[in-house]
Amino acid sequence: MERAPEVIVTVDVGLFTLVEGALAVGLIRRGAPPYAGVEALPGGYVHPEEDGSTHAAALRVLDAKVGLEPSYLEQLYTFSGLVRDPRGWSISVAYYALVPSEQLAPAVEAGELRLVAVDEAPKLPFDHDEILAIAVHRLRAKSTYSTLPAFLLAPSFTLSELQEVYEQVIGQSLDRTTFRRQMLDLGAIEPTGQRRRTGASRPAELYRLRGPELRPFGLP
Amino acid sequence: MERAPEVIVTVDVGLFTLVEGALAVGLIRRGAPPYAGVEALPGGYVHPEEDGSTHAAALRVLDAKVGLEPSYLEQLYTFSGLVRDPRGWSISVAYYALVPSEQLAPAVEAGELRLVAVDEAPKLPFDHDEILAIAVHRLRAKSTYSTLPAFLLAPSFTLSELQEVYEQVIGQSLDRTTFRRQMLDLGAIEPTGQRRRTGASRPAELYRLRGPELRPFGLP
Repeated sequence: MERAPEVIVTVDVGLFTLVEGALAVGLIRRGAPPYAGVEALPGGYVHPEEDGSTHAAALRVLDAKVGLEPSYLEQLYTFSGLVRDPRGWSISVAYYALVPSEQLAPAVEAGELRLVAVDEAPKLPFDHDEILAIAVHRLRAKSTYSTLPAFLLAPSFTLSELQEVYEQVIGQSLDRTTFRRQMLDLGAIEPTGQRRRTGASRPAELYRLRGPELRPFGLP
Repeated sequence: MERAPEVIVTVDVGLFTLVEGALAVGLIRRGAPPYAGVEALPGGYVHPEEDGSTHAAALRVLDAKVGLEPSYLEQLYTFSGLVRDPRGWSISVAYYALVPSEQLAPAVEAGELRLVAVDEAPKLPFDHDEILAIAVHRLRAKSTYSTLPAFLLAPSFTLSELQEVYEQVIGQSLDRTTFRRQMLDLGAIEPTGQRRRTGASRPAELYRLRGPELRPFGLP
Protein backbone atom coordinates (compact mmCIF):
# COMPACT_ATOMS: atom_id res chain seq x y z
CA MET A 1 0.00 0.00 0.00
CA GLU A 2 1.33 3.37 -1.09
CA ARG A 3 2.36 5.66 1.76
CA ALA A 4 0.68 9.03 2.19
CA PRO A 5 3.13 11.80 1.34
CA GLU A 6 3.77 14.75 3.63
CA VAL A 7 1.91 17.85 2.63
CA ILE A 8 1.28 20.98 4.69
CA VAL A 9 -2.49 21.42 4.93
CA THR A 10 -3.86 24.82 5.88
CA VAL A 11 -6.98 26.93 5.57
CA ASP A 12 -7.08 30.66 4.77
CA VAL A 13 -10.10 32.92 4.97
CA GLY A 14 -11.00 36.08 3.06
CA LEU A 15 -13.02 37.84 5.77
CA PHE A 16 -15.27 40.54 4.29
CA THR A 17 -17.29 43.29 5.88
CA LEU A 18 -18.33 46.90 5.17
CA VAL A 19 -16.32 49.90 6.39
CA GLU A 20 -18.06 53.22 5.75
CA GLY A 21 -20.10 51.55 3.05
CA ALA A 22 -17.11 50.07 1.20
CA LEU A 23 -16.22 46.39 0.90
CA ALA A 24 -13.31 45.69 3.24
CA VAL A 25 -11.17 42.66 4.09
CA GLY A 26 -9.75 41.68 7.48
CA LEU A 27 -5.98 41.26 7.89
CA ILE A 28 -4.05 39.94 10.86
CA ARG A 29 -0.38 40.45 11.62
CA ARG A 30 1.39 37.10 11.65
CA GLY A 31 3.04 36.21 14.94
CA ALA A 32 5.20 33.29 13.83
CA PRO A 33 7.45 32.63 10.84
CA PRO A 34 7.23 32.52 7.92
CA TYR A 35 6.43 36.20 7.33
CA ALA A 36 6.32 37.01 11.07
CA GLY A 37 5.06 40.56 11.59
CA VAL A 38 3.53 40.75 8.11
CA GLU A 39 -0.21 41.25 7.57
CA ALA A 40 -2.03 38.32 5.96
CA LEU A 41 -5.43 36.73 5.61
CA PRO A 42 -6.42 34.82 8.76
CA GLY A 43 -5.33 31.19 8.39
CA GLY A 44 -3.71 28.22 10.04
CA TYR A 45 -2.99 24.52 9.96
CA VAL A 46 -5.79 22.03 9.77
CA HIS A 47 -5.89 20.10 13.08
CA PRO A 48 -7.07 16.59 12.20
CA GLU A 49 -7.48 15.67 15.87
CA GLU A 50 -10.10 18.38 16.43
CA ASP A 51 -11.42 19.63 13.08
CA GLY A 52 -14.24 17.65 11.49
CA SER A 53 -13.42 19.07 8.07
CA THR A 54 -11.57 21.99 6.48
CA HIS A 55 -14.79 23.98 6.90
CA ALA A 56 -14.61 23.31 10.64
CA ALA A 57 -10.94 24.28 10.60
CA ALA A 58 -11.82 27.63 9.01
CA LEU A 59 -14.45 28.23 11.71
CA ARG A 60 -11.94 27.34 14.44
CA VAL A 61 -9.30 29.68 12.99
CA LEU A 62 -11.78 32.57 12.83
CA ASP A 63 -12.90 31.91 16.39
CA ALA A 64 -9.34 31.63 17.71
CA LYS A 65 -7.86 34.61 15.86
CA VAL A 66 -10.79 37.01 15.61
CA GLY A 67 -13.30 35.67 18.18
CA LEU A 68 -15.84 35.36 15.43
CA GLU A 69 -18.58 33.03 14.21
CA PRO A 70 -19.37 34.22 10.67
CA SER A 71 -22.95 34.33 9.41
CA TYR A 72 -21.74 33.17 5.99
CA LEU A 73 -18.74 30.95 5.17
CA GLU A 74 -18.15 29.27 1.82
CA GLN A 75 -15.32 27.27 0.32
CA LEU A 76 -13.60 29.30 -2.40
CA TYR A 77 -10.87 27.26 -4.06
CA THR A 78 -7.91 25.08 -3.12
CA PHE A 79 -4.43 26.43 -3.80
CA SER A 80 -1.41 24.12 -3.83
CA GLY A 81 2.20 23.58 -4.77
CA LEU A 82 5.79 23.94 -3.69
CA VAL A 83 6.26 27.68 -4.06
CA ARG A 84 3.27 29.17 -2.25
CA ASP A 85 4.62 28.48 1.25
CA PRO A 86 8.36 28.58 2.14
CA ARG A 87 7.83 25.66 4.56
CA GLY A 88 7.29 23.23 1.69
CA TRP A 89 4.68 21.65 -0.54
CA SER A 90 1.40 22.94 0.78
CA ILE A 91 -2.32 23.02 0.25
CA SER A 92 -4.51 25.87 1.35
CA VAL A 93 -8.24 25.26 1.23
CA ALA A 94 -9.41 28.87 0.95
CA TYR A 95 -12.76 30.13 2.24
CA TYR A 96 -14.49 33.44 2.27
CA ALA A 97 -16.72 34.78 5.03
CA LEU A 98 -19.15 37.68 5.25
CA VAL A 99 -19.88 39.41 8.54
CA PRO A 100 -21.45 42.65 9.78
CA SER A 101 -18.73 45.05 10.91
CA GLU A 102 -20.22 45.21 14.43
CA GLN A 103 -19.06 41.62 14.95
CA LEU A 104 -15.49 42.61 14.15
CA ALA A 105 -15.34 45.72 16.35
CA PRO A 106 -13.86 43.95 19.42
CA ALA A 107 -11.02 42.38 17.42
CA VAL A 108 -10.34 45.68 15.62
CA GLU A 109 -10.30 47.62 18.90
CA ALA A 110 -7.97 45.04 20.47
CA GLY A 111 -5.58 45.52 17.54
CA GLU A 112 -5.95 41.88 16.47
CA LEU A 113 -7.54 42.67 13.12
CA ARG A 114 -7.22 45.49 10.61
CA LEU A 115 -9.95 46.21 8.11
CA VAL A 116 -8.85 47.64 4.78
CA ALA A 117 -10.85 48.46 1.65
CA VAL A 118 -10.34 45.61 -0.80
CA ASP A 119 -8.84 47.90 -3.45
CA GLU A 120 -6.38 49.34 -0.92
CA ALA A 121 -5.04 46.08 0.48
CA PRO A 122 -1.25 45.92 0.89
CA LYS A 123 0.92 43.29 -0.80
CA LEU A 124 0.15 40.06 1.07
CA PRO A 125 2.44 37.09 1.77
CA PHE A 126 2.10 33.53 0.37
CA ASP A 127 -0.42 33.62 -2.50
CA HIS A 128 -2.88 35.63 -0.42
CA ASP A 129 -3.07 38.37 -3.09
CA GLU A 130 -4.42 35.77 -5.50
CA ILE A 131 -6.77 34.29 -2.89
CA LEU A 132 -8.11 37.77 -2.11
CA ALA A 133 -8.61 38.64 -5.79
CA ILE A 134 -10.47 35.40 -6.49
CA ALA A 135 -12.59 35.83 -3.35
CA VAL A 136 -13.60 39.37 -4.33
CA HIS A 137 -14.43 38.17 -7.82
CA ARG A 138 -16.60 35.31 -6.48
CA LEU A 139 -18.31 37.59 -3.97
CA ARG A 140 -19.15 40.17 -6.64
CA ALA A 141 -20.34 37.59 -9.17
CA LYS A 142 -22.52 35.74 -6.67
CA SER A 143 -24.02 39.00 -5.40
CA THR A 144 -25.65 39.64 -8.78
CA TYR A 145 -27.93 36.64 -8.39
CA SER A 146 -28.30 35.92 -4.68
CA THR A 147 -28.91 37.38 -1.23
CA LEU A 148 -25.18 37.13 -0.45
CA PRO A 149 -24.57 40.89 0.18
CA ALA A 150 -27.16 40.91 2.98
CA PHE A 151 -24.72 38.90 5.10
CA LEU A 152 -22.52 42.01 5.27
CA LEU A 153 -25.28 43.82 7.17
CA ALA A 154 -26.46 43.64 10.76
CA PRO A 155 -29.32 41.14 11.29
CA SER A 156 -31.91 43.96 10.93
CA PHE A 157 -31.58 46.40 8.05
CA THR A 158 -33.59 48.90 6.08
CA LEU A 159 -34.29 48.43 2.38
CA SER A 160 -32.11 51.48 1.70
CA GLU A 161 -29.19 49.87 3.52
CA LEU A 162 -29.74 46.65 1.58
CA GLN A 163 -29.79 48.48 -1.74
CA GLU A 164 -26.63 50.39 -0.83
CA VAL A 165 -24.71 47.21 -0.05
CA TYR A 166 -25.80 45.62 -3.33
CA GLU A 167 -24.74 48.72 -5.25
CA GLN A 168 -21.42 48.84 -3.45
CA VAL A 169 -20.57 45.17 -3.94
CA ILE A 170 -21.63 44.83 -7.55
CA GLY A 171 -20.47 48.34 -8.49
CA GLN A 172 -23.68 49.33 -10.26
CA SER A 173 -26.61 51.64 -9.47
CA LEU A 174 -29.99 49.95 -9.09
CA ASP A 175 -33.47 51.32 -9.60
CA ARG A 176 -35.05 51.81 -6.17
CA THR A 177 -38.57 50.68 -7.09
CA THR A 178 -37.45 47.61 -9.04
CA PHE A 179 -34.99 46.61 -6.33
CA ARG A 180 -37.61 46.79 -3.59
CA ARG A 181 -40.20 44.90 -5.58
CA GLN A 182 -37.72 42.13 -6.48
CA MET A 183 -36.50 41.78 -2.92
CA LEU A 184 -40.00 41.56 -1.46
CA ASP A 185 -41.48 39.37 -4.21
CA LEU A 186 -38.59 36.97 -3.78
CA GLY A 187 -39.57 36.19 -0.21
CA ALA A 188 -35.89 36.22 0.80
CA ILE A 189 -36.40 38.93 3.41
CA GLU A 190 -39.23 39.62 5.82
CA PRO A 191 -40.24 42.60 7.97
CA THR A 192 -39.10 42.38 11.59
CA GLY A 193 -42.07 44.48 12.69
CA GLN A 194 -39.64 47.10 14.02
CA ARG A 195 -38.78 50.52 12.66
CA ARG A 196 -35.67 52.64 13.01
CA ARG A 197 -35.46 56.44 12.99
CA THR A 198 -32.55 57.48 10.80
CA GLY A 199 -33.17 61.21 10.43
CA ALA A 200 -35.94 63.75 10.40
CA SER A 201 -38.13 61.60 8.14
CA ARG A 202 -40.45 58.91 9.42
CA PRO A 203 -38.80 55.77 10.80
CA ALA A 204 -37.79 53.18 8.20
CA GLU A 205 -39.11 49.65 8.36
CA LEU A 206 -36.54 47.01 9.34
CA TYR A 207 -36.12 43.69 7.53
CA ARG A 208 -34.17 40.51 8.11
CA LEU A 209 -33.13 37.50 6.00
CA ARG A 210 -35.66 34.65 6.19
CA GLY A 211 -32.97 32.01 6.70
CA PRO A 212 -29.24 31.37 6.85
CA GLU A 213 -29.09 29.93 3.32
CA LEU A 214 -28.43 31.91 0.15
CA ARG A 215 -31.46 32.62 -1.98
CA PRO A 216 -31.68 33.58 -5.63
CA PHE A 217 -32.16 37.20 -6.51
CA GLY A 218 -32.62 38.21 -10.14
CA LEU A 219 -31.14 41.63 -10.75
CA PRO A 220 -32.55 43.35 -13.82
CA MET B 1 6.73 26.75 15.27
CA GLU B 2 3.65 24.57 15.03
CA ARG B 3 4.23 21.19 13.40
CA ALA B 4 2.31 20.31 10.24
CA PRO B 5 -0.20 17.57 11.04
CA GLU B 6 -0.48 14.38 9.05
CA VAL B 7 -3.30 14.45 6.57
CA ILE B 8 -3.86 12.12 3.61
CA VAL B 9 -3.97 14.29 0.48
CA THR B 10 -5.53 12.88 -2.66
CA VAL B 11 -7.16 13.96 -5.89
CA ASP B 12 -10.26 12.38 -7.47
CA VAL B 13 -11.61 13.07 -10.94
CA GLY B 14 -15.13 12.90 -12.33
CA LEU B 15 -14.29 11.95 -15.92
CA PHE B 16 -17.18 12.71 -18.28
CA THR B 17 -17.85 11.77 -21.86
CA LEU B 18 -20.77 10.85 -24.12
CA VAL B 19 -21.89 7.26 -24.70
CA GLU B 20 -24.58 6.92 -27.37
CA GLY B 21 -25.45 10.56 -26.82
CA ALA B 22 -25.87 10.28 -23.04
CA LEU B 23 -23.63 11.84 -20.41
CA ALA B 24 -21.42 9.10 -18.93
CA VAL B 25 -18.78 8.89 -16.21
CA GLY B 26 -15.62 6.79 -16.19
CA LEU B 27 -15.04 4.28 -13.38
CA ILE B 28 -11.97 2.21 -12.62
CA ARG B 29 -11.76 -0.91 -10.49
CA ARG B 30 -9.49 -0.29 -7.50
CA GLY B 31 -6.46 -2.56 -7.33
CA ALA B 32 -5.34 -1.82 -3.75
CA PRO B 33 -7.13 -1.50 -0.42
CA PRO B 34 -9.22 0.18 0.77
CA TYR B 35 -12.12 -1.00 -1.40
CA ALA B 36 -9.87 -3.23 -3.56
CA GLY B 37 -11.88 -4.59 -6.49
CA VAL B 38 -14.58 -1.94 -6.17
CA GLU B 39 -15.30 0.56 -8.93
CA ALA B 40 -14.51 4.20 -8.09
CA LEU B 41 -13.70 7.53 -9.68
CA PRO B 42 -10.07 7.67 -10.86
CA GLY B 43 -7.93 9.12 -8.08
CA GLY B 44 -4.74 8.84 -6.13
CA TYR B 45 -2.31 10.40 -3.70
CA VAL B 46 -0.76 13.75 -4.44
CA HIS B 47 2.98 13.22 -5.04
CA PRO B 48 4.70 16.37 -3.75
CA GLU B 49 8.03 15.33 -5.24
CA GLU B 50 6.64 15.32 -8.79
CA ASP B 51 3.33 17.19 -8.89
CA GLY B 52 3.47 20.98 -9.29
CA SER B 53 -0.02 21.34 -7.85
CA THR B 54 -3.16 19.30 -7.23
CA HIS B 55 -4.17 20.16 -10.79
CA ALA B 56 -0.93 18.55 -12.01
CA ALA B 57 -1.64 15.57 -9.75
CA ALA B 58 -5.05 15.11 -11.36
CA LEU B 59 -3.44 15.19 -14.82
CA ARG B 60 -0.82 12.64 -13.75
CA VAL B 61 -3.49 10.30 -12.32
CA LEU B 62 -5.52 10.47 -15.54
CA ASP B 63 -2.45 9.81 -17.62
CA ALA B 64 -1.29 6.91 -15.43
CA LYS B 65 -4.66 5.21 -15.01
CA VAL B 66 -6.44 5.98 -18.27
CA GLY B 67 -3.63 7.13 -20.60
CA LEU B 68 -5.46 10.38 -21.11
CA GLU B 69 -4.79 14.11 -21.42
CA PRO B 70 -8.21 15.75 -21.01
CA SER B 71 -9.19 18.72 -23.15
CA TYR B 72 -10.97 20.26 -20.15
CA LEU B 73 -10.10 19.85 -16.45
CA GLU B 74 -11.46 22.05 -13.66
CA GLN B 75 -11.25 21.99 -9.89
CA LEU B 76 -14.64 21.10 -8.42
CA TYR B 77 -14.51 21.20 -4.62
CA THR B 78 -12.36 19.94 -1.77
CA PHE B 79 -13.78 17.21 0.44
CA SER B 80 -12.26 16.47 3.84
CA GLY B 81 -12.62 14.81 7.23
CA LEU B 82 -12.07 11.66 9.21
CA VAL B 83 -14.86 9.46 7.88
CA ARG B 84 -14.53 9.75 4.11
CA ASP B 85 -11.46 7.49 3.88
CA PRO B 86 -10.87 4.47 6.18
CA ARG B 87 -7.11 5.23 6.16
CA GLY B 88 -7.61 8.35 8.28
CA TRP B 89 -8.20 12.10 8.13
CA SER B 90 -8.08 12.91 4.46
CA ILE B 91 -8.51 15.63 1.90
CA SER B 92 -9.59 15.01 -1.65
CA VAL B 93 -9.25 17.90 -4.05
CA ALA B 94 -11.87 16.85 -6.60
CA TYR B 95 -11.77 17.76 -10.28
CA TYR B 96 -13.95 17.08 -13.25
CA ALA B 97 -12.78 16.47 -16.79
CA LEU B 98 -14.56 16.41 -20.15
CA VAL B 99 -13.25 14.31 -23.04
CA PRO B 100 -14.49 12.98 -26.38
CA SER B 101 -15.29 9.27 -26.07
CA GLU B 102 -12.78 8.44 -28.83
CA GLN B 103 -9.99 9.36 -26.41
CA LEU B 104 -11.26 6.79 -23.90
CA ALA B 105 -11.71 3.92 -26.34
CA PRO B 106 -8.26 2.36 -25.74
CA ALA B 107 -8.72 2.30 -21.93
CA VAL B 108 -12.25 0.93 -22.28
CA GLU B 109 -11.11 -1.80 -24.70
CA ALA B 110 -8.24 -2.71 -22.39
CA GLY B 111 -10.73 -3.15 -19.53
CA GLU B 112 -9.09 -0.36 -17.52
CA LEU B 113 -12.10 1.94 -17.59
CA ARG B 114 -15.85 1.43 -17.63
CA LEU B 115 -18.18 4.14 -18.90
CA VAL B 116 -21.61 4.27 -17.30
CA ALA B 117 -24.48 6.71 -17.80
CA VAL B 118 -24.38 9.15 -14.89
CA ASP B 119 -27.89 8.22 -13.73
CA GLU B 120 -27.00 4.52 -13.76
CA ALA B 121 -23.78 4.71 -11.76
CA PRO B 122 -23.37 2.03 -9.06
CA LYS B 123 -22.87 2.86 -5.39
CA LEU B 124 -19.32 4.22 -5.17
CA PRO B 125 -16.80 3.96 -2.31
CA PHE B 126 -15.48 6.84 -0.15
CA ASP B 127 -17.66 9.92 -0.76
CA HIS B 128 -17.46 9.42 -4.52
CA ASP B 129 -21.27 9.39 -4.84
CA GLU B 130 -21.30 12.93 -3.47
CA ILE B 131 -18.37 14.01 -5.63
CA LEU B 132 -20.11 12.62 -8.72
CA ALA B 133 -23.43 14.30 -7.86
CA ILE B 134 -21.77 17.69 -7.31
CA ALA B 135 -19.71 17.31 -10.50
CA VAL B 136 -22.81 16.53 -12.58
CA HIS B 137 -24.60 19.50 -11.03
CA ARG B 138 -21.69 21.84 -11.81
CA LEU B 139 -21.34 20.50 -15.35
CA ARG B 140 -25.05 20.98 -16.07
CA ALA B 141 -25.19 24.44 -14.52
CA LYS B 142 -22.10 25.68 -16.33
CA SER B 143 -23.32 24.26 -19.64
CA THR B 144 -26.25 26.70 -19.65
CA TYR B 145 -23.94 29.68 -19.99
CA SER B 146 -20.70 28.48 -21.58
CA THR B 147 -19.11 26.38 -24.29
CA LEU B 148 -18.38 23.60 -21.78
CA PRO B 149 -20.44 20.83 -23.49
CA ALA B 150 -18.36 21.17 -26.67
CA PHE B 151 -15.44 19.58 -24.81
CA LEU B 152 -17.41 16.31 -24.82
CA LEU B 153 -17.19 16.23 -28.63
CA ALA B 154 -14.39 15.35 -31.01
CA PRO B 155 -12.32 18.38 -32.10
CA SER B 156 -14.46 18.76 -35.26
CA PHE B 157 -18.23 18.64 -34.95
CA THR B 158 -21.36 19.60 -36.84
CA LEU B 159 -23.78 22.19 -35.47
CA SER B 160 -26.35 19.39 -35.08
CA GLU B 161 -23.96 17.39 -32.94
CA LEU B 162 -23.22 20.47 -30.84
CA GLN B 163 -26.92 21.18 -30.31
CA GLU B 164 -27.53 17.55 -29.34
CA VAL B 165 -24.83 17.59 -26.68
CA TYR B 166 -26.19 20.84 -25.20
CA GLU B 167 -29.71 19.38 -25.12
CA GLN B 168 -28.48 16.16 -23.54
CA VAL B 169 -26.39 17.83 -20.85
CA ILE B 170 -28.83 20.54 -19.83
CA GLY B 171 -31.90 18.32 -20.32
CA GLN B 172 -33.83 20.81 -22.41
CA SER B 173 -34.79 21.17 -26.09
CA LEU B 174 -33.34 24.16 -27.91
CA ASP B 175 -34.61 26.02 -30.94
CA ARG B 176 -32.39 25.11 -33.88
CA THR B 177 -32.29 28.55 -35.50
CA THR B 178 -31.68 30.43 -32.24
CA PHE B 179 -29.02 27.98 -31.15
CA ARG B 180 -27.09 28.29 -34.39
CA ARG B 181 -27.29 32.06 -34.46
CA GLN B 182 -26.13 32.35 -30.85
CA MET B 183 -23.25 29.94 -31.36
CA LEU B 184 -22.01 31.69 -34.48
CA ASP B 185 -22.59 35.26 -33.23
CA LEU B 186 -20.67 34.41 -30.09
CA GLY B 187 -17.50 33.69 -32.03
CA ALA B 188 -16.80 30.70 -29.79
CA ILE B 189 -16.66 28.29 -32.69
CA GLU B 190 -15.31 28.60 -36.22
CA PRO B 191 -15.68 26.59 -39.41
CA THR B 192 -12.86 24.13 -40.08
CA GLY B 193 -13.41 24.44 -43.84
CA GLN B 194 -14.20 20.72 -43.93
CA ARG B 195 -17.51 18.94 -44.42
CA ARG B 196 -18.69 15.51 -43.35
CA ARG B 197 -21.24 13.31 -45.10
CA THR B 198 -23.61 11.86 -42.49
CA GLY B 199 -26.36 10.43 -44.65
CA ALA B 200 -28.12 10.95 -47.93
CA SER B 201 -28.34 14.72 -47.45
CA ARG B 202 -25.57 17.10 -48.41
CA PRO B 203 -22.42 17.01 -46.24
CA ALA B 204 -22.62 19.04 -43.03
CA GLU B 205 -20.12 21.78 -42.29
CA LEU B 206 -17.65 21.00 -39.52
CA TYR B 207 -16.78 23.44 -36.73
CA ARG B 208 -14.22 23.58 -33.94
CA LEU B 209 -13.80 25.57 -30.71
CA ARG B 210 -11.77 28.74 -31.24
CA GLY B 211 -9.62 28.13 -28.16
CA PRO B 212 -9.07 25.88 -25.15
CA GLU B 213 -10.74 28.30 -22.73
CA LEU B 214 -14.43 28.36 -21.81
CA ARG B 215 -16.48 31.08 -23.46
CA PRO B 216 -19.84 32.52 -22.44
CA PHE B 217 -22.90 31.30 -24.23
CA GLY B 218 -26.26 32.86 -23.44
CA LEU B 219 -29.04 30.33 -23.79
CA PRO B 220 -32.47 31.90 -24.27
